[in-house]
Amino acid sequence: MSPFKTTIPLSLSSQPLNSLKSDEAASGPKQGPTFQDGQRRVDYVLTYHVQKPQSVRRKTSRFADYRILRSLRRSLSTMRSGGTPPSKEDPEIAAHKHRLDYHEDDKRFRQTEFEDNLREVGLELEKDEGNKIPGIGFLKIHAPWNVLCREAEFMKLKMPTKKVWINLFIHKVTAPLHPKVEPNRPQNVKHLSHPFSREKQHLKFDLLKMTFTGITSLLGNGVYTAAYPLHDVSILPHISIPMKYFGEKIGLYFAWLGVYTQMLIPAAIVGVIVFLYGCATVDNDIPSMEICDPRNNITMCPLCDRACSYWKLKTACGTARASHLFDNPATVFFSIFMALWATMFMEHWKRRQMRLNYIWDLTGFEEEEDHHRAEYEIQVMQKTLKKQDMSPKVGLFPITHVQRFSSLVPLQIGVTFAVVFGVILYRISIRAALHMSSNPTARSNIRATVKGTAAVINLVIIIIMDEVYGAVARWLTLLEVPKTDKSFEERLIIKTFVLKFANAFSPIVYLAFFRGRMVGRPGDYVYVIGSYRMEECAHAGCLMELCIQLCITMLGKQLIQNNLFEIGIPKIKKLIRRRKSDMDSQQQEDYNMTLQRHEKDHFLGPFVGLSPEYMEMIIQFGMVTLFVASFPLAPLFALLNNIIEIRLDAKKFVTEVRRPIAARAKDIGIWYNLLRGLSKVAVIVNAFVISFTSDFIPRLVYQYMYSPDGSMHGFVNHTLSYFNVSDFQPGTAPLQPMHLGYEVQICRYKDYRETLWSNTPYDLSKEFWAILACRLAFVIVFQNVVMLMSDFVDWLIPDIPKDISLQIHKEKILMVELFMKEEEGKKLLRDNHTNQGPFQPRSRPASHAPSKC
Amino acid sequence: MSPFKTTIPLSLSSQPLNSLKSDEAASGPKQGPTFQDGQRRVDYVLTYHVQKPQSVRRKTSRFADYRILRSLRRSLSTMRSGGTPPSKEDPEIAAHKHRLDYHEDDKRFRQTEFEDNLREVGLELEKDEGNKIPGIGFLKIHAPWNVLCREAEFMKLKMPTKKVWINLFIHKVTAPLHPKVEPNRPQNVKHLSHPFSREKQHLKFDLLKMTFTGITSLLGNGVYTAAYPLHDVSILPHISIPMKYFGEKIGLYFAWLGVYTQMLIPAAIVGVIVFLYGCATVDNDIPSMEICDPRNNITMCPLCDRACSYWKLKTACGTARASHLFDNPATVFFSIFMALWATMFMEHWKRRQMRLNYIWDLTGFEEEEDHHRAEYEIQVMQKTLKKQDMSPKVGLFPITHVQRFSSLVPLQIGVTFAVVFGVILYRISIRAALHMSSNPTARSNIRATVKGTAAVINLVIIIIMDEVYGAVARWLTLLEVPKTDKSFEERLIIKTFVLKFANAFSPIVYLAFFRGRMVGRPGDYVYVIGSYRMEECAHAGCLMELCIQLCITMLGKQLIQNNLFEIGIPKIKKLIRRRKSDMDSQQQEDYNMTLQRHEKDHFLGPFVGLSPEYMEMIIQFGMVTLFVASFPLAPLFALLNNIIEIRLDAKKFVTEVRRPIAARAKDIGIWYNLLRGLSKVAVIVNAFVISFTSDFIPRLVYQYMYSPDGSMHGFVNHTLSYFNVSDFQPGTAPLQPMHLGYEVQICRYKDYRETLWSNTPYDLSKEFWAILACRLAFVIVFQNVVMLMSDFVDWLIPDIPKDISLQIHKEKILMVELFMKEEEGKKLLRDNHTNQGPFQPRSRPASHAPSKC
Repeated sequence: MSPFKTTIPLSLSSQPLNSLKSDEAASGPKQGPTFQDGQRRVDYVLTYHVQKPQSVRRKTSRFADYRILRSLRRSLSTMRSGGTPPSKEDPEIAAHKHRLDYHEDDKRFRQTEFEDNLREVGLELEKDEGNKIPGIGFLKIHAPWNVLCREAEFMKLKMPTKKVWINLFIHKVTAPLHPKVEPNRPQNVKHLSHPFSREKQHLKFDLLKMTFTGITSLLGNGVYTAAYPLHDVSILPHISIPMKYFGEKIGLYFAWLGVYTQMLIPAAIVGVIVFLYGCATVDNDIPSMEICDPRNNITMCPLCDRACSYWKLKTACGTARASHLFDNPATVFFSIFMALWATMFMEHWKRRQMRLNYIWDLTGFEEEEDHHRAEYEIQVMQKTLKKQDMSPKVGLFPITHVQRFSSLVPLQIGVTFAVVFGVILYRISIRAALHMSSNPTARSNIRATVKGTAAVINLVIIIIMDEVYGAVARWLTLLEVPKTDKSFEERLIIKTFVLKFANAFSPIVYLAFFRGRMVGRPGDYVYVIGSYRMEECAHAGCLMELCIQLCITMLGKQLIQNNLFEIGIPKIKKLIRRRKSDMDSQQQEDYNMTLQRHEKDHFLGPFVGLSPEYMEMIIQFGMVTLFVASFPLAPLFALLNNIIEIRLDAKKFVTEVRRPIAARAKDIGIWYNLLRGLSKVAVIVNAFVISFTSDFIPRLVYQYMYSPDGSMHGFVNHTLSYFNVSDFQPGTAPLQPMHLGYEVQICRYKDYRETLWSNTPYDLSKEFWAILACRLAFVIVFQNVVMLMSDFVDWLIPDIPKDISLQIHKEKILMVELFMKEEEGKKLLRDNHTNQGPFQPRSRPASHAPSKC
Repeated sequence: MSPFKTTIPLSLSSQPLNSLKSDEAASGPKQGPTFQDGQRRVDYVLTYHVQKPQSVRRKTSRFADYRILRSLRRSLSTMRSGGTPPSKEDPEIAAHKHRLDYHEDDKRFRQTEFEDNLREVGLELEKDEGNKIPGIGFLKIHAPWNVLCREAEFMKLKMPTKKVWINLFIHKVTAPLHPKVEPNRPQNVKHLSHPFSREKQHLKFDLLKMTFTGITSLLGNGVYTAAYPLHDVSILPHISIPMKYFGEKIGLYFAWLGVYTQMLIPAAIVGVIVFLYGCATVDNDIPSMEICDPRNNITMCPLCDRACSYWKLKTACGTARASHLFDNPATVFFSIFMALWATMFMEHWKRRQMRLNYIWDLTGFEEEEDHHRAEYEIQVMQKTLKKQDMSPKVGLFPITHVQRFSSLVPLQIGVTFAVVFGVILYRISIRAALHMSSNPTARSNIRATVKGTAAVINLVIIIIMDEVYGAVARWLTLLEVPKTDKSFEERLIIKTFVLKFANAFSPIVYLAFFRGRMVGRPGDYVYVIGSYRMEECAHAGCLMELCIQLCITMLGKQLIQNNLFEIGIPKIKKLIRRRKSDMDSQQQEDYNMTLQRHEKDHFLGPFVGLSPEYMEMIIQFGMVTLFVASFPLAPLFALLNNIIEIRLDAKKFVTEVRRPIAARAKDIGIWYNLLRGLSKVAVIVNAFVISFTSDFIPRLVYQYMYSPDGSMHGFVNHTLSYFNVSDFQPGTAPLQPMHLGYEVQICRYKDYRETLWSNTPYDLSKEFWAILACRLAFVIVFQNVVMLMSDFVDWLIPDIPKDISLQIHKEKILMVELFMKEEEGKKLLRDNHTNQGPFQPRSRPASHAPSKC
């Protein structure tokens, strides 16, 4: 079906799951990292600094120790009772945290305490101190199957979902039917028994995650230095779906990336066809033929004050021909196509997500409750204390929280706009400096220099600012002190998105919509900040420069950020980390061979979440949809990038970073909303690009309103207004008026203005207003037609695939039947029990099935 | 909170339910209609024609009888087995149906068969033949509690929802806790036990509905003449929520109507303020001051060929002043307000619906499976037979079905447009006829005559066509042969909506956007169909006429359709039905006193569904939102109408029509989508009304671009172009050029065209294009800003009210706890049983609770 299924190391296809053996079933000679006994598997690892054990000075910080202990006990007990969600950190401790001095013995004491607690829960521990890596101790943790089973019972309290209930019944009823699951079970049948065995797999991770929720504070305090589950290279080759290895959250990312990349294929093909259409018709394009015609003798007005001189329109021939590649009627079609493509992509993903939810048994899964963030708790406490001093009421807190948030919003917007404006000013000044250069050779090829450098400079600024903005967004979000982890993540994503998006798109938006718009006219130019004249466009519009900018930004950003940053920097970091251990490369290799899995993983970078991956793709999606009218090759570039990206991401997750704790997720969350917002904005942006940036509308208007013979002949002349050189403002006339070899009386400039012999020369002409009206009318028609079509497509494609909804329905019926049988059996059993009769209940096998737990 | 809560007979508020007693609990002296024994309640009534019993000629139609019997048995058994949805009618029977001659003995035989089946199911029957009403027999049906309980067990198979399971557990676990529910239970506590008792209430209706699904064919064949549950006047005064009496579907309608009416209050208030603002500022409006200025001496060109003459602009003074009432800056604000209002209304309703779903325990309810319509089954069979003759494959059927559907869509659109165009042509010809009248007095007050009559004629056409379109929509839907009842209803609604909407809005759209647009100019008018000149607008725009049309349509439609049709016609029908029994009014009254409930209900009209009610309200919603920019009083009119409407509807449902079978529904279905679509369309329509129908943009443009002193002085002059009377086309100049008492050389007309002394006189001027561009720009800005704000409001208001989501969460936790206890108990019981120990299980009270079933 897809070309990825076979070629990508971690296949992204969502075929029905193969049989999944439970841990115990897969046993025998134990594979993967184990304890020293070679039997017990290492499920999780904590690392800490090792020093010589000292006498534990319990007295010095008895109070603090007591508190830590209490909080740990509390969090471990809440885990089981299903009460209020455990706060990660007791606010009281957090407040006292800063007052504690972290002596080594304190750390050791807390480690001991924590380990005792883990053992109390039933986990098995093994220590590995400074064998290979001096100064680093490893605490390996194994969660035995019976502990998982026991915890599963309690977990149900935390997850009051239909799923769990059903699973329980299903398990009870069907347990005898599948004591040992055959590996070659038919692929398309999804047995009802399936959810339960998988449920347990998850419980393992969930349990680990829950147990170690309290560890974040211990990590923060330096009691432990790192905490991670281990990579399992032995099972990697057998895994076809990343979900099984990384959990649903990362699985969904890869599935989404796969759907997106698949959907890019048709878009790329159509884009290439549109581009080829432009190439094929470039010789028949009358306006560019007219510009390139050697008989054409149009003298243009200078492009800058004093330094520049008059120029021949002929010289713009190349640009005009190149512009036609991206500015032809096929582009309009392509814009509409891409708007519908975006809608189809969203719909397709919705369906795929539903399908995955079904296959991965997430239909009944509900998001866990959100835990309050420690920082928030501290803030609340501080506020409460402050409030208590001033007034007896505590309830005022939410108001101040809202106030703080609302005061930060304008700040963010201000920062964003300031930087965007700064970039534009920078561009103008760079250009002016180049123009003002006294070097004649530099001046002669100014155009080429400017075009090439400006885009590259922009790219560099974008990449640098991207990192800065990432930090700014994090800082701003921290200032806000969001209540929960989820809201922290969402706020951070939104802020990062707004800033990075503004960063990536501000030069493009500037080129598309502002450049060459408010330049004024010869003799009455618009100047900003003293004497900088606003930038003008070449004759064939700014579309060409927009293309170059888009092309360089897309290629450069993806090449540099993907390859250099994503692959290069982690490599360098790893290298630096190793360099500290003072070994040459041969030694290093030998040493590596001797390392155990948990020691190898120690050298990997930490897993930083999926946000950077998604963010990169969303920005790319923006490039593909927002300005596709001006750059039909964007989908192709994106496709090529993504084919590499999937492989790089997969490789990175497996070999470059520590294994993340598997997390469940039903959907891609806020990213879906951002995508949806983007595809809405894309419609209006494309409408404006077609009508304002390209020459599509002026050409149509000329052809049907002004052309004497209904053809495009004379269009170029029609777009040029006349300027009498005697009307130059003092000090702005060219220094070398005879540059072209003859004296210029009247020069031409691209604008629709009244002729010299009208009553009001240089005023905007009737043609200007007529074309403006047509441009605006086009925007309205385009926007509404495309929106209507998108809504229609949205309505046409059902959200839940037909086969999945049928399947769900069938399962429901099946389950109800099983349930009824169970009920009947129970009734019989009950009757039996009451009557104490000799009759053996029919339901016994169901109730007393040899269950693994 | 709302003014309706106390005043409306059936309060629409959704306060937490009062305690609801089960049927049995509320017993004692039985209230409401009962069997002759005064004990068993009449749940359902079938009526049939009574004639002298004849010898049953079984032989004649033995074959058909056997088939009917088989189909009945099958449908009754499928009801229980939860297999494939029962087809209402066996296709074979349906095919043979036409070949059967319906002899009376056949009918009687089928009645007997059906009644036997009902008794077999466990229902209790009582006959009442022609006691009071000669020729009519009544079959009263009572569903005993134990039958309902038994059926409830089987029903669960048909409704494999979480709800039912949970209910079962809850019931088992909590049964001992509430043997007798106290009537004065605290209002805000919603006990967990609640769902179950209510579930049973519903089962009663559901069971009845299911059992009688087969009856539609019997009704169609004339075996029975009517089937309805009985009104229960005794419990009506005690019921505060219509849901309890009519079921959730009708309850939702009233709740929706209540929310809509409540939301209309702020809209009406703001609308009145906007209108008052217009009234207050009318004397400061410079353009109308200029028009009314006695010194103003502008001669206008004639409004029609030959018959009309020149006229003074002064005479348009009244219209200009009136127009200001609806055409002022406040209207723009009001349009934005109403767009956001529509969004808020949708959000508010979504939340209310969630709340009602929770309160009415519909959160787990899933729509029943849809049954195939009998007509569809027949079609399928006929097709299959036909196909079998031609080719062995049957699978081609869906394609022809799609073909049929797609061929009908253009037909519908064609019909709609033909009628709309016909109405416009009719308007033009009426107007032309009036203009061409040779009667001078008629001609002098043509304007007033036309305005008044045109709107009324339109109203009459609208009301007549409304009925025609209703029939057309039904006919078109029947032609399509939709597969299921639900799709039949949806298609019918969509078609009716499209046709009725086009009907109600075509004159308004014509007035707002087409009238006076394509009229041409003096000397070069546009003529349609020979010699009809396109209609022109009065000086102050068509806005005034649009207002009048809207006002008359809204008031007239609502008054005539609500009062005359909804109340009057059922009354007349009832009268006619009674007239047949040949009694005078006194006799009638006496006779009525003696009638029993089931006999009284027999005289009521049948319940025809909620579609007409919703449709009326949706059209009104369209009036309120779509053209609110031109008529700010629309919400007030709608509010006044709805306050009456709620009462009329409630009265109608209780006293004018037979009691409908209670149906469950989670939402208002397709109506929500229609509302949503309307509120989206409203944004763009209002944008166009403001920018094109009103003078808002031309005024702004004049003030900021052309006015010499930045004031509105000179605006009127600016909007008028010059016409040289010598340029009239031959035969179009006025017959009475000296009408005003002086010879006219140059007359003025409202348009932006080049002056007489320009190079291209009568061409569209630069001002025209500039203003057009501004109008279009306004549309783009308005549409996108309002859409953005709507999306923001949508995002801001959570779909599920906070308290409801908290409540749901709490209940879940509670339920899980109960479930865990139950599980524990079961385990104990099991252990006990296995060990045969003396220990009595803790869970016994839970399992052996004295349940009512």
